[in-house]
Amino acid sequence: MERLEQYREIIRELLQDYCGDDREEVDSEIQMICDRDRDHYQLVSLGWQGHRRFYTVLMHLDIKNGKIWIQRNETDHLIAQELVSMGVLREDIVLGLQPEYVRADSGYSLV
Amino acid sequence: MERLEQYREIIRELLQDYCGDDREEVDSEIQMICDRDRDHYQLVSLGWQGHRRFYTVLMHLDIKNGKIWIQRNETDHLIAQELVSMGVLREDIVLGLQPEYVRADSGYSLV
Repeated sequence: MERLEQYREIIRELLQDYCGDDREEVDSEIQMICDRDRDHYQLVSLGWQGHRRFYTVLMHLDIKNGKIWIQRNETDHLIAQELVSMGVLREDIVLGLQPEYVRADSGYSLV
Repeated sequence: MERLEQYREIIRELLQDYCGDDREEVDSEIQMICDRDRDHYQLVSLGWQGHRRFYTVLMHLDIKNGKIWIQRNETDHLIAQELVSMGVLREDIVLGLQPEYVRADSGYSLV
């Protein structure tokens, strides 16, 4: 349980390092979305460039059965490496956005 | 404050009507993400079709300054109409995914 809390805190820190908390400008915003009950964590960038709408999920991490799943990463950050440097065990990280045959050789957890 | 709580409850009900709570199958899941502190609410569909990854935000609603913003809708549900039928005032709904010149003629709120 203590480790679970630690991992939640690390994820929040990772997302905040990227964007601060919610950041709103005139035509765009970056939202930090944290659902602690279901352990889903996300950064979303959305807004307008003129009349063109944009909406991108920049990062999405989950905690399932004590492991951190990287579900999406549209940034140039190496999230798994950053998590390790922040204290997460390699065997507690799942590269969810890679198919299992890639995960098997990744040095991270398969599931 | 009472209305804000009512709107939060309506949004949660709307999302749950669509998916139930988190729903996980072998290769796919629908996640319900609720951040009550920042008032962001989302449904995400993600998983694998064979080796192909898919990741789609089906719905995204926010509450800002007492109004419900529809930020994204990749379903065939008419979310604004459903919100009205569930008790939300038309003037408290913003079609955030439409540009302002469209919102102006929508009968819903501009901002």
